[in-house]
Amino acid sequence: MSRMLLGPGPSNVPERVLQALAQPLLGHLDPAFLAVVDEVQVRLRRIFGTENAMTLPLSATGSAGMEACLCNLLEPGDDVVVGVAGVFGERMCEVASRIGGRVTRVEAEWGTPLDPDAMAEAMARVRPRVAAFVHAETSTGVCQPVEPIAAAAREAGVMLVLDCVTSLGGIRVSLDEWGIDAAYSGTQKCLSCPPGLSPVSFSARAMQRVQSRSQPVQSWYLDLTLLAGYFGQERVYHHTAPVSMVTALCEALRIVEEEGLEARERRHREAAAALIETLGGLGFEPLVDEAYRLPPLTTLRLPESILTRGEADVRRSLLDDHGIEVGGGLGKLAGRVWRVGLMGHNARVENVERLASALRTIVS
Amino acid sequence: MSRMLLGPGPSNVPERVLQALAQPLLGHLDPAFLAVVDEVQVRLRRIFGTENAMTLPLSATGSAGMEACLCNLLEPGDDVVVGVAGVFGERMCEVASRIGGRVTRVEAEWGTPLDPDAMAEAMARVRPRVAAFVHAETSTGVCQPVEPIAAAAREAGVMLVLDCVTSLGGIRVSLDEWGIDAAYSGTQKCLSCPPGLSPVSFSARAMQRVQSRSQPVQSWYLDLTLLAGYFGQERVYHHTAPVSMVTALCEALRIVEEEGLEARERRHREAAAALIETLGGLGFEPLVDEAYRLPPLTTLRLPESILTRGEADVRRSLLDDHGIEVGGGLGKLAGRVWRVGLMGHNARVENVERLASALRTIVS
Repeated sequence: MSRMLLGPGPSNVPERVLQALAQPLLGHLDPAFLAVVDEVQVRLRRIFGTENAMTLPLSATGSAGMEACLCNLLEPGDDVVVGVAGVFGERMCEVASRIGGRVTRVEAEWGTPLDPDAMAEAMARVRPRVAAFVHAETSTGVCQPVEPIAAAAREAGVMLVLDCVTSLGGIRVSLDEWGIDAAYSGTQKCLSCPPGLSPVSFSARAMQRVQSRSQPVQSWYLDLTLLAGYFGQERVYHHTAPVSMVTALCEALRIVEEEGLEARERRHREAAAALIETLGGLGFEPLVDEAYRLPPLTTLRLPESILTRGEADVRRSLLDDHGIEVGGGLGKLAGRVWRVGLMGHNARVENVERLASALRTIVS
Repeated sequence: MSRMLLGPGPSNVPERVLQALAQPLLGHLDPAFLAVVDEVQVRLRRIFGTENAMTLPLSATGSAGMEACLCNLLEPGDDVVVGVAGVFGERMCEVASRIGGRVTRVEAEWGTPLDPDAMAEAMARVRPRVAAFVHAETSTGVCQPVEPIAAAAREAGVMLVLDCVTSLGGIRVSLDEWGIDAAYSGTQKCLSCPPGLSPVSFSARAMQRVQSRSQPVQSWYLDLTLLAGYFGQERVYHHTAPVSMVTALCEALRIVEEEGLEARERRHREAAAALIETLGGLGFEPLVDEAYRLPPLTTLRLPESILTRGEADVRRSLLDDHGIEVGGGLGKLAGRVWRVGLMGHNARVENVERLASALRTIVS
């Protein structure tokens, strides 16, 4: 069964990555595999735009990366300011409050970015230990400008956690330049690797914070002080690393760097522009203002021609009759928008044409 | 690079499983993939010996499975009795205490099983919410008889958590017959699938407990009430399932069931017996009494011929010159024993002969 995956992830995976995935196994402490781990860490640092030593592929999906960032930096009773403009900002609030964090929400309408002044005001007022927000909101297709919020966080002396799930490997991520203390992503979006791992990165300041906690991290599995034993110099056993997935990620990162980050971003922007123009001709309208659109994932208001046929039925027909997956709306946007991902390997104008052609067949 | 993986896991993966891993991706909500999820759940139930609806592949490794069992069933301040006779019993104590559990330890010497009377006494005295122990202690090679402890737990009205990481798919696991409330395993041992997922199973009583908690599970990622949305009837999004790994696990489970659980256990027992006999001829002696040996993983005291050459050097030579991985001792047993895994696909007498032949070359 062949699928073109133009939803919010996973995206299609290049043949080279599938072949890497299918390599005969190595042990998780085999020097030959540890060389792969080394390479993954070096490449992730470059793609994250950081020199953070603690940059590694966490052995779980992106949502666990979110949890790892928050549960290592927060202790019960700590204040945290969270920017909420979609499902993943909401999720951060839920994760933080389960850890025992006292959450202050800064909200924006879904489909718009956070107001940096509102974030600055909340940070200055609450003086939280951590502020967290989403770079690329997968539920709305908004790309959040990072610098103004980061500047305000520096002024308030607040550590920043950034969700880069749908930006890493697609558009520029520059953790060190921005001054981000902890960031997480997923493998199945712009990196075009199967889902299962969460690339994460922590600054030296974040690691100092973790080391000076008054009580241990609630999660043994996600505790960075323990993970540092395997992902640092010593390479000692903590848990069994997902050998095949890490090997596949290594190949996916090689492909990203062979293309180059700038060329890759350009390709994502061109594909998204083609999508908006081509589907505009079919009556789809972008939800997000041009200045804040997220090239890897475009949210489109549905035209009458789709709504009258039932948007879920049209998506099902795209999948069953044309082998094309697109994403429905999430949360408040369910039934009102589609989310079309042109991520990583899939960010190509020819894929836009294939989607448009299938839609014309269904709607005509 | 080709390796024969005779350590404590991962084990080698059959070609069919590697091919499944390398299939082009499906979306995690694609009906074609949800059929794979269904099949995995049905097969896992049979292999776990249970009718538990909440039987599923958790999207992280076995250690996260341990954490999922304990963090869903325990609330801060709850008592838990833990059997400790090796690294993984120790890990259970650490995980439980980070969750806020009040841990009562019942210890046994490493290389011996837990005393059921001591477990019964502790459960009767402490009246904990949960008791937890390891079926197959990967650090010592002890197979713990489950029934006597399970009977005592029933009498005390205590819920039981069982570590089946190195037993599931190799030797008999019968959760319902034994009366186990929560169990976890890993994919990379006797199931001969790459590491990355943790098969888990929870009884209806365990799920009632989770639903009647006074506060939410600390981990959003591992919260069973949320996972039930995806792994139950509704199939709604929680996190992005690791599509490729789940597809590979499905193929691995098919292979297990094609062989049959009884035939598979017989093969594991025959391979372990051959190992002990053949390496006995080279001076290796089993650490564990015959009645408690764990067929998938044998712990062997090292002969002088290995100790004088440096056991780590001999293991390195096995790996570099012969492509064979065996495991060193863990924790208290480091430097004193080897752990030889004959797990899943690798549980074959011919692999024993290949190991013995390589050892003869090195030692002679």
